[in-house]
Amino acid sequence: MPDLNSFKKEALAQLIELLKIPSISTLPENKPDMDRAAAYIEAALQRAGMTRTELIHRAHHPLVYGEWLGAPGKPTLLLYGHYDVQPADPLEEWKSPPFEPEIRDNNIYARGATDDKGQTWILVKAVEWIMQRDGKLPINVKFLIEGEEESGGETIEKYVSEKPAQLAADAVVICDSEMFAEGMPTICTGLRGIVYGELAVQGARQDLHSGVYGGAAPNPIMAIAEILCALKDRDGHITIPGFYDRVLPPAPAEKEAWASLPFDEAAYLEKEVGSVALTGEPGFSVFDRTWARPTLEVHGIRGGFTGDGAKTVIPARAVAKLSMRLVADMRPEEAIAQLQEAVKNVTPRGVTAEFKLLHGAGPSLVDPDNSFIRESALAMEEVFGRKTVYMRSGGSIPIVGLFLTHMAMPSVLMGFGLPDDNLHSPNEKFHLPNFYQGIDAVIRYLERLGA
Amino acid sequence: MPDLNSFKKEALAQLIELLKIPSISTLPENKPDMDRAAAYIEAALQRAGMTRTELIHRAHHPLVYGEWLGAPGKPTLLLYGHYDVQPADPLEEWKSPPFEPEIRDNNIYARGATDDKGQTWILVKAVEWIMQRDGKLPINVKFLIEGEEESGGETIEKYVSEKPAQLAADAVVICDSEMFAEGMPTICTGLRGIVYGELAVQGARQDLHSGVYGGAAPNPIMAIAEILCALKDRDGHITIPGFYDRVLPPAPAEKEAWASLPFDEAAYLEKEVGSVALTGEPGFSVFDRTWARPTLEVHGIRGGFTGDGAKTVIPARAVAKLSMRLVADMRPEEAIAQLQEAVKNVTPRGVTAEFKLLHGAGPSLVDPDNSFIRESALAMEEVFGRKTVYMRSGGSIPIVGLFLTHMAMPSVLMGFGLPDDNLHSPNEKFHLPNFYQGIDAVIRYLERLGA
Repeated sequence: MPDLNSFKKEALAQLIELLKIPSISTLPENKPDMDRAAAYIEAALQRAGMTRTELIHRAHHPLVYGEWLGAPGKPTLLLYGHYDVQPADPLEEWKSPPFEPEIRDNNIYARGATDDKGQTWILVKAVEWIMQRDGKLPINVKFLIEGEEESGGETIEKYVSEKPAQLAADAVVICDSEMFAEGMPTICTGLRGIVYGELAVQGARQDLHSGVYGGAAPNPIMAIAEILCALKDRDGHITIPGFYDRVLPPAPAEKEAWASLPFDEAAYLEKEVGSVALTGEPGFSVFDRTWARPTLEVHGIRGGFTGDGAKTVIPARAVAKLSMRLVADMRPEEAIAQLQEAVKNVTPRGVTAEFKLLHGAGPSLVDPDNSFIRESALAMEEVFGRKTVYMRSGGSIPIVGLFLTHMAMPSVLMGFGLPDDNLHSPNEKFHLPNFYQGIDAVIRYLERLGA
Repeated sequence: MPDLNSFKKEALAQLIELLKIPSISTLPENKPDMDRAAAYIEAALQRAGMTRTELIHRAHHPLVYGEWLGAPGKPTLLLYGHYDVQPADPLEEWKSPPFEPEIRDNNIYARGATDDKGQTWILVKAVEWIMQRDGKLPINVKFLIEGEEESGGETIEKYVSEKPAQLAADAVVICDSEMFAEGMPTICTGLRGIVYGELAVQGARQDLHSGVYGGAAPNPIMAIAEILCALKDRDGHITIPGFYDRVLPPAPAEKEAWASLPFDEAAYLEKEVGSVALTGEPGFSVFDRTWARPTLEVHGIRGGFTGDGAKTVIPARAVAKLSMRLVADMRPEEAIAQLQEAVKNVTPRGVTAEFKLLHGAGPSLVDPDNSFIRESALAMEEVFGRKTVYMRSGGSIPIVGLFLTHMAMPSVLMGFGLPDDNLHSPNEKFHLPNFYQGIDAVIRYLERLGA
């Protein structure tokens, strides 16, 4: 067998092949790519020694399952990742094409490099290495690699509710988050939930001439603007009645831990965001605003004329993509109902408006004082030579809430992304030392759990 | 020579050929079509007996000029129309393709059917008929048919300021407006001006993940919504300081004339607009709101994700297309400066915003007690057998303000469109009886002026 370094190089070469597949789950035209990526993952699980693998079909894209249960009496971990990626547009802003991976400055650049193909590959390759080295694993593992994480996760949601026994484990390891800073091992203890949908506004029966009808006819884009401004004030405070009722403030110990994290707001503004100023609710820190407070964001508005030049049209219809990020203990169904009720109450004269849900998922918050989380923290400390820190993430991994609700399984979010990895943006990258040390850390984690 | 009826049928066949040319002035890819349409017009002017024609090039698309000055001592009319059309999207809403003219129920359906190829053709064909019949015209005529009416009119503006003597005339006839109702001859005495531009808002340096950064990073689409809502309240009242200072209320006689026009607001809402209610400033009638009050409209927002499905992005940049319609005595430069100053004052924290002008034109208002307008009214009364009414239009024909300001020439807006012609919308049409009676009316107008 090769040494671990050669094994890691080979793992990178295989990851590059996976990154070349444009597995964008939200775009119907990429369906064949989704199937290719799922097949590539299943083959990898077989190569890693799984005794049984399966492609599970429920909604749009297959879920890849694999198991090795040859360590009776030892703990069982469910290892989670996803092979689908976000759309890559705007394409013209990528320095190298999103699906032609390129290594520059010790980073690999590609859509999905860190979110989540690269991190999924860490789990697969750590298990494969132990299996090659020892011919067996120190604990039992079940892989669950989904293809709808970026687009609603309908398949996994159905499967988890149908077959909880099949997936039962002592804990879930999710490798889809980031380190607080380079070289600083991190466990994420909380995630925001999400409600994503479309606000469709209808004005006139058809597009109208803005000269002939302007002043008397409703404008659906203006109506969307008015609705948005009635839902959220200029300070970023959401004015939907009851919206904050279930929001838990972070525990004092957690606030204290966050205060000790090295964070330079000026550098965050300049290097990560790059706007003239930050925004958000007064009286809350950046950690509070992005980790512990809910949001309402608009992602795009379709309708009207957006080509070059001028067209003097009042569009008949406009559709805004909206999302709300939720924090513990908010409930998606309740937030959706509150939003729909609020939209009804603030819709201006002359238009009809309707919010249609595309997908929703609850927030999660775990107790760091759990043996599976503790061992993960210690395994990472061994590899990175530095104490593991605890943070939250403002993003959403719907499966975490699902496992918690349906199966009472705690999730261990050991992530190896970096804050400047450009996930969901052009020039997404994964830092290669993190890829290699991530494999080491997962190897040590499994060894420690089996000891 | 053929009789007038056969001549009109032939005129329609030629119009159909003109309508087949997709002469969309705002889209660069249609440049060759613009040139074809200009050549088609020039050939028609030659056929109509013009002794000199010329294609005038200044900015984007040629201006077609033609003259016959063989009636010394008689008045000179400048006959204006335009051969460019609006974009045709959304294409899927057209019953027959926009550039494959189809006659249904005595209407011809095509982009530009009424705005303004059909109406331009009335002027050309009325002149040609008299020339064929008499071998000469009763007055002097100059044709000026432009190709940038829907996209800023840079060429004609340059040409008018360069060569006012070349275009000098006693009055301008503009055939680009509509009748108040079917069978009711109409002269338009006022037009709104327009300022059209783009409001560009920049937030972060690049698109950001709405989970990771939502709550702290600025959202340019939300910022556009906030700016729009700070410029115009929910009643449609524009809150830009000083914006209404120069707005002239309609004269009492004009208000009285409007009150006598047959207008059913419920039918207007149901048949023309088709929304659940009308909008606009309380205390003003629909005529006031669309003819005598300025507006601020948003025509589209580019930026963010608008494809199918979900993408959780905070866009770095968004651009809104905005226009303001202006009424007498507002001045475009002043309105632009007021808007820019207001945008500066209401731009929310975290973003930069800039309004960039695409084109502007002043409003116009003419005195109906002018012999060229009186004779036009009488010529139409003869043909339609009904008294001519006076109205205004909420649309903008920049050239009218230009002729008034640069050359003190009054414009006679005799239009033959109908309120349900869907101009700037899918299924634009021109009512064929209006096409034929329009030719009759222009023939009688020229005869009366020469008598």
